[in-house]
Amino acid sequence: MTTTRKNKPTTTKKPIVLGRNRGPISKNLRVIPLGGLEEIGRNMTAFELGNDIIIVDCGLMFPEEEMMGIDYIIPNTEYLEKNKKKIRGVIITHGHFDHIGAIPHIIPRIGNPPIYATELTCAMILKRQEDYKDQAPLRTNVVRKIDRIVLGGFKVEFFHVNHSIPDAVGLVIHTPMGTIVYTGDFKFDHSPVSDVPADISKIARLGSEGVLALMSESTDADTPGYSISESVIRDNLEQIFLNAKGRIITATFASLVSRIQQIADLADKYGRKLAVDGYSMKNNVEIAKKLGYINARQSTFIDVREVNNYPDNKIAILCTGAQGEGNAVLMRIINDDHRSIKIHKGDTVIFSSSVIPGNERSVQGVKDTLYRKGAEVIHYKMMDIHSGGHGHSEDLKMMINLIRPKYLIPIHGTYYMRKIHSDLGKSVGLKEENILIGENGRVIEFDYRGNGKLTSEKIPSSYVMVDGLGVGDVGNVVLRDRQLLAKDGMFTIVAIIDRKTKKVLGEPQVTSRGFIYVKENFDLVNATKKRLRSIVAKNIGDKKVTPNWDHIKNAIRDDIGQFLFQKTQRRPMVLPVIIEV
Amino acid sequence: MTTTRKNKPTTTKKPIVLGRNRGPISKNLRVIPLGGLEEIGRNMTAFELGNDIIIVDCGLMFPEEEMMGIDYIIPNTEYLEKNKKKIRGVIITHGHFDHIGAIPHIIPRIGNPPIYATELTCAMILKRQEDYKDQAPLRTNVVRKIDRIVLGGFKVEFFHVNHSIPDAVGLVIHTPMGTIVYTGDFKFDHSPVSDVPADISKIARLGSEGVLALMSESTDADTPGYSISESVIRDNLEQIFLNAKGRIITATFASLVSRIQQIADLADKYGRKLAVDGYSMKNNVEIAKKLGYINARQSTFIDVREVNNYPDNKIAILCTGAQGEGNAVLMRIINDDHRSIKIHKGDTVIFSSSVIPGNERSVQGVKDTLYRKGAEVIHYKMMDIHSGGHGHSEDLKMMINLIRPKYLIPIHGTYYMRKIHSDLGKSVGLKEENILIGENGRVIEFDYRGNGKLTSEKIPSSYVMVDGLGVGDVGNVVLRDRQLLAKDGMFTIVAIIDRKTKKVLGEPQVTSRGFIYVKENFDLVNATKKRLRSIVAKNIGDKKVTPNWDHIKNAIRDDIGQFLFQKTQRRPMVLPVIIEV
Repeated sequence: MTTTRKNKPTTTKKPIVLGRNRGPISKNLRVIPLGGLEEIGRNMTAFELGNDIIIVDCGLMFPEEEMMGIDYIIPNTEYLEKNKKKIRGVIITHGHFDHIGAIPHIIPRIGNPPIYATELTCAMILKRQEDYKDQAPLRTNVVRKIDRIVLGGFKVEFFHVNHSIPDAVGLVIHTPMGTIVYTGDFKFDHSPVSDVPADISKIARLGSEGVLALMSESTDADTPGYSISESVIRDNLEQIFLNAKGRIITATFASLVSRIQQIADLADKYGRKLAVDGYSMKNNVEIAKKLGYINARQSTFIDVREVNNYPDNKIAILCTGAQGEGNAVLMRIINDDHRSIKIHKGDTVIFSSSVIPGNERSVQGVKDTLYRKGAEVIHYKMMDIHSGGHGHSEDLKMMINLIRPKYLIPIHGTYYMRKIHSDLGKSVGLKEENILIGENGRVIEFDYRGNGKLTSEKIPSSYVMVDGLGVGDVGNVVLRDRQLLAKDGMFTIVAIIDRKTKKVLGEPQVTSRGFIYVKENFDLVNATKKRLRSIVAKNIGDKKVTPNWDHIKNAIRDDIGQFLFQKTQRRPMVLPVIIEV
Repeated sequence: MTTTRKNKPTTTKKPIVLGRNRGPISKNLRVIPLGGLEEIGRNMTAFELGNDIIIVDCGLMFPEEEMMGIDYIIPNTEYLEKNKKKIRGVIITHGHFDHIGAIPHIIPRIGNPPIYATELTCAMILKRQEDYKDQAPLRTNVVRKIDRIVLGGFKVEFFHVNHSIPDAVGLVIHTPMGTIVYTGDFKFDHSPVSDVPADISKIARLGSEGVLALMSESTDADTPGYSISESVIRDNLEQIFLNAKGRIITATFASLVSRIQQIADLADKYGRKLAVDGYSMKNNVEIAKKLGYINARQSTFIDVREVNNYPDNKIAILCTGAQGEGNAVLMRIINDDHRSIKIHKGDTVIFSSSVIPGNERSVQGVKDTLYRKGAEVIHYKMMDIHSGGHGHSEDLKMMINLIRPKYLIPIHGTYYMRKIHSDLGKSVGLKEENILIGENGRVIEFDYRGNGKLTSEKIPSSYVMVDGLGVGDVGNVVLRDRQLLAKDGMFTIVAIIDRKTKKVLGEPQVTSRGFIYVKENFDLVNATKKRLRSIVAKNIGDKKVTPNWDHIKNAIRDDIGQFLFQKTQRRPMVLPVIIEV
């Protein structure tokens, strides 16, 4: 951070304006986080070197509660759209939506550059793309973890990491200014299930060769200790398979492919038929089976409509809904809305996931109903049946110690998480001034001598909201209106005005939703009609002057709004419509 | 539970119909939970004995996320309204809103019976009642913990318990069928702050005299171990006061009067002036000071507008907003919306509360902003600076062991929590058949021989929603409309029809909110007008037959809804208005 004195122009510090595609080309390496630095999700970073840009990840983020009706949020790519000729490629670290989810929306806008990812990740990207058939085909390229690809002035290598989906990689980005290591999402698992441990020797080799900057994820920086090995989870799940007398119903995230693998393999081992239900989960199982990530025999899998053809102790079910989501399979099962599955007394229901903040109440409701129906419920507070995909504080420290970078740039997380990650960096000996806690859109530069800094240059990085087919067309006004409508509903009052007499013709019409039952509140509604008439009468002075209808509508809105509030203590959105005929 | 055979009338098992005020009067003691058994909140239980009813607690519950715009939910009191002549009194265990909050809405409907509560609880009830000045005055009666009151056939005694508000009591209800102990909210604290330990000897004496049923709260039944003593919390808070260099800002619930006491006393001890901000918190401090529950000198308190007149290390601030609530004081402070307080570098901000499920994201956002602004943040995961008011599993077991009741009725909690509480009961030796896991509205009866059972009689116990001045007038239709409006907004289209020609006069008018910007989507809006015209034209056959406008409006709604979905993948609520002139 630089200190500036007042009244003294700091012209020498003026950043080189590259963002608008004019001025000299910077000779520095520019690292531009486009998302993931003030939130969990929409991960995306650009690396710029003269005339070359590479992009790492292209993810989405799920909306906050108050962003009503929004499907998800993606990074702002104005800067990349202006510089799309420079883009040499997009590298994806793994197949989760917070890393691949914005591809259908962003890739067409930035000139459809080639995408590089491992086999499973490519398959996940292409599966999602099937929902966007109108677009030009993606230019995906499968890379192996031993590959080294050259993209303009960048050379990129990969290293294997453990995560809750197989085939996840970290990146080694070689540049003339030095090497950047980008971890992606990772944890160290020395005994993973159906996977190999993270490639610690390659990571250590990189460290010994010298690394300029480590960009490492911060999701679980505030969780002490080491992450739990998947083999512990697997052993606990196996205990459940050994002891359960009835059916075993496992709810988890569709994205937790590693957990899905474990359940499929256990069903196979213990002679249970496995029915998978939930659109995204079925897709993921299909992909994982095709690419050989699931070891279970084909005969283990049955269609969900066949579950009642087998005794309960021969059935396992894998489904979505571990968060109590209203439209997920588990919710349909407990509400007796599922065509084939109802809860039987003696079923064991496993919630194999953590609870995403905000979902506690709905998960509690689901557990309640399951208990009532006589099922056994097993959740992560009772037994280690879930391990997240992210390194805890000790994993993060181990990564820093293996890489021994000059600079640490904590990524993937709110300011708070990255601040804690930065404290971890200090605790293992990094210098405070060499830890760069950036922000979305804020350019980080490294020069030829290997000196890095947060510049004052900021490129656009605001939220871009996706709602249905609209990308970026829902702004704060629409959101604020949705919040108001949600709270107290709306109240439309329509008046027809005679163009000649300027009098209200007939009866004004009221349409109201989400406020009160109009049918039970005739007096209230009639009073508003009377008020409208009197406001119109009062405001029509000389009949020869055209009335100021906007002014009159505002007066109606204020008066009726106030009146309804006084009578009900509610504030519906009042929408007067005036039509002259 | 009884089993019934098909085709065989079970006349002998027909419950005695008391609920409708006819038929013979039951000779049994009837215990009727009206709320608090399938939720956290709206606690209320009626006890009925021949011609006498007493009521314990009268609380509200805060709404679920999908109950948009609802202020809170109260118990259904249809049964009590029909039997109000029998009501001898309402006893309140302590001053929290989940125990007193429904009083203004319910007491007038049930004949304004006398209310019995301890001094602080009465003061809290009367303070809240100031917002309902139009009502008849409440008939509150202050009881001391040594009192014994007679209400019809019931004799009621009190015993002191620890909770997060002072002056909380448990109840001993003596009846001819035996003694019922009702704990209210409680924990055992052997070293409370500004309070005495729960009256274990009185509780033990009750146990030795024989108790028919223990009704004990279940809020923290699934938390292992003992609850944390307030003196541990106080010592940790004192450490913060000893070490903080800047101001100390403590955010907590306004209802956590015990915590407020601790902060006031510490500010006094360490020579800091204390400014309290937040409407409800200021009220509670005022009441607690007046009744002597706060030991700090009067000169310790300053107005919030004076905080900038003192050096930072002489200031402590106590405010609401520990849950990241949008309208609370802490939120205004961090958003620079507060008139007197801005965050200074070096401020210490204490979140002295747990995080209510559903608020994690907003709390995280507040912490983020505080870190960014250079404040130190201390929250319950870092240090024991909060202890809830509810007994953990060991406290609950200790209560059962002290009381040694014949029956255990777990109350205050979802089915899941009460099931776990019932398992605790079994683990200390109660018989499974003597643990009654009831439900709201389901009558429990005890006969003269001291035999209890869950009957099959169910009285009305549905949610009654309070929204502004309306009690019970917001039903599922209004709520569903609010949910729809929240998701994709609304789209009103108004057409004027010439009464003679049955043609659309002039231009239909569109008003839309929360859907799209109409101004940026002229083509889409014009297309809907065109569709409306063509639907009207198509449906007006013979001009002599009166058109079926309802049918035409439905056709417009379906057609335009479908059209907008196809163009935008959003489903606004389409509201056609047709007016003939």
